[in-house]
Amino acid sequence: MSVVHENTYPMDDLEQAELRARLQHKIDNKTKPLGSLGRLEKLAVQLGLILKTESPRLQHPQMLVCAGDHGIVAHGVSAFPSDVTWQMVANFLAGGAAVSVLARQHGIALNVLDCGVKYDFQDMPGLIKRKVAYGTADSVTQSAMSDAQCQEAINNGREVLKSLPGNVVLIGEMGIGNTSSAALLLSRLGNLDIADCTGAGTGLDHFAVARKVETLRLALKQHAGVNDPIEVLARLGGFEIATMVGIVLQAATENRVIIVDGFIASSAVLVASLLAPKVKQRCVYAHCSAESGHRLMLDLLQGQALLDLGLRLGEGSGAALAWPLLQSASDILCDMASFESAGVARRD
Amino acid sequence: MSVVHENTYPMDDLEQAELRARLQHKIDNKTKPLGSLGRLEKLAVQLGLILKTESPRLQHPQMLVCAGDHGIVAHGVSAFPSDVTWQMVANFLAGGAAVSVLARQHGIALNVLDCGVKYDFQDMPGLIKRKVAYGTADSVTQSAMSDAQCQEAINNGREVLKSLPGNVVLIGEMGIGNTSSAALLLSRLGNLDIADCTGAGTGLDHFAVARKVETLRLALKQHAGVNDPIEVLARLGGFEIATMVGIVLQAATENRVIIVDGFIASSAVLVASLLAPKVKQRCVYAHCSAESGHRLMLDLLQGQALLDLGLRLGEGSGAALAWPLLQSASDILCDMASFESAGVARRD
Repeated sequence: MSVVHENTYPMDDLEQAELRARLQHKIDNKTKPLGSLGRLEKLAVQLGLILKTESPRLQHPQMLVCAGDHGIVAHGVSAFPSDVTWQMVANFLAGGAAVSVLARQHGIALNVLDCGVKYDFQDMPGLIKRKVAYGTADSVTQSAMSDAQCQEAINNGREVLKSLPGNVVLIGEMGIGNTSSAALLLSRLGNLDIADCTGAGTGLDHFAVARKVETLRLALKQHAGVNDPIEVLARLGGFEIATMVGIVLQAATENRVIIVDGFIASSAVLVASLLAPKVKQRCVYAHCSAESGHRLMLDLLQGQALLDLGLRLGEGSGAALAWPLLQSASDILCDMASFESAGVARRD
Repeated sequence: MSVVHENTYPMDDLEQAELRARLQHKIDNKTKPLGSLGRLEKLAVQLGLILKTESPRLQHPQMLVCAGDHGIVAHGVSAFPSDVTWQMVANFLAGGAAVSVLARQHGIALNVLDCGVKYDFQDMPGLIKRKVAYGTADSVTQSAMSDAQCQEAINNGREVLKSLPGNVVLIGEMGIGNTSSAALLLSRLGNLDIADCTGAGTGLDHFAVARKVETLRLALKQHAGVNDPIEVLARLGGFEIATMVGIVLQAATENRVIIVDGFIASSAVLVASLLAPKVKQRCVYAHCSAESGHRLMLDLLQGQALLDLGLRLGEGSGAALAWPLLQSASDILCDMASFESAGVARRD
């Protein structure tokens, strides 16, 4: 059963402003001092605006972990070998990874997409095979993806999302080397120095980060002058990032709530938001990670993260950790008593 | 069935250090980059140390909302009238308040303690009657509680906690005027200027906060030279705060995890930690509130909050919001695969 709220007639600004006012009025009449639930109140209003109702209920949350490998790892930009990508996919599906444990805790449906992993998977429950190729090419010397491959990955994301029930999607990823791709996208699309966009990833030391920056500079030089978001994505991105772009675009079209995990998932949102500005309104940023470029990315997206726990794991783990806060925001809006209904006096 | 881990033979430092090392080793072997779950990893270690096991499981969480009224409200230190205390108690029990909604979301048992509310309650499911008096006296002119009343409230907290199952307690409160009491305790016990400890509470404007500070200065002057924690609590505290002190002391003795809500709950921890230093090790600080003194209070307690969402509601709402993060920390420690068990390669 699909409970997606398809909406091919987007609300105009007036309708949106009126709904916002009704949502704010509803929250302000709950039995609590005005504004005392802070960020949760803003989140409740956002959920109402995305789902276009004064009583937003979150249904059938879908975690999609997009996996892919990266040619750029040949330059030693990651602390872990490429094989860890497929090994972790197997771990997600076996239930032993952080995202598996957290999705189970919260009753979130978990699917892993093979978007471009350098490995042949057997069929497994929870594995959705949408492999475009066995890893990207090395963006230091050539385009990571061809234009056709990039478009195929985006379409895959759209199609997979379309097939899933619910009105919330959580996006996470796995891909050894993909903090490099995210840093490249941030640097080029945000017009920022690559050194500011580059972090330790899975745990590089200071010297290795410096070498990573130099490698990424070479990739940027190789693709100098390319600025179109889709073209930048093809040249410097990854299959899992392009697939997430498709998921985000489709979820935005369907008015689903999009819970964005960390640095790499945010890079997909950055690309998608340049293609369809309405994307931003649908996104909830789960956390600000310890990966140094993430804060810059969130600033660029004008997004405020819910959690700040020094996470830097990816997988969708941060999105799963933030999930109960969205449920709380919805419950507060839908289930709390008003001053009138509870017979509580207002302020003096 | 009580699952409290009674322990009259506290671990010595060596035992504790050994357990800490085993917990850290266990986390470091989980399938994730070292340290990549940030604050959650520290939390997992803390839970293991409190419950004295490498596989801490949180059981039967108990939310205790302690309610009481305050004589000092005669000076206009709150934006809401005293009647709101009993009205909100009724709202908690009817299921319409924020803490009711959040406790329900997470399956947390909710009990409300009448520690000293200015109202006669009927018997109601979930209401625990431990009223010491109908509100405290005005601390500007006299001691808020007598020494006997203060001791009675502390004992009430100890007894109620003892009677409850589980190994986790969440403490919250309700009491119009109690940010004043908490500010007074912080100022006197932390040797801080009262202006730095005083905030807007339920929503005072700038001028009303300034008047509140002047009122609190008078109370401090009235009780000048009093520094003993219990005596300070009796002179300047409240029945709900003293009852929480008893809950915290008893929970620490029983090695339960204590999830501390906001500014006022933290003031009870401050008093309790001066009486029994082991209290600090058992406490998890749910959030840093928008009430300005709370950050100073956490600094004084050397506590790091999990959430920073601009909350300033109290009731235990922040503690309930943080609860799933503790479950996640426990699940990660107990249920995630190790590199060996999952067959995942370690870093290059």
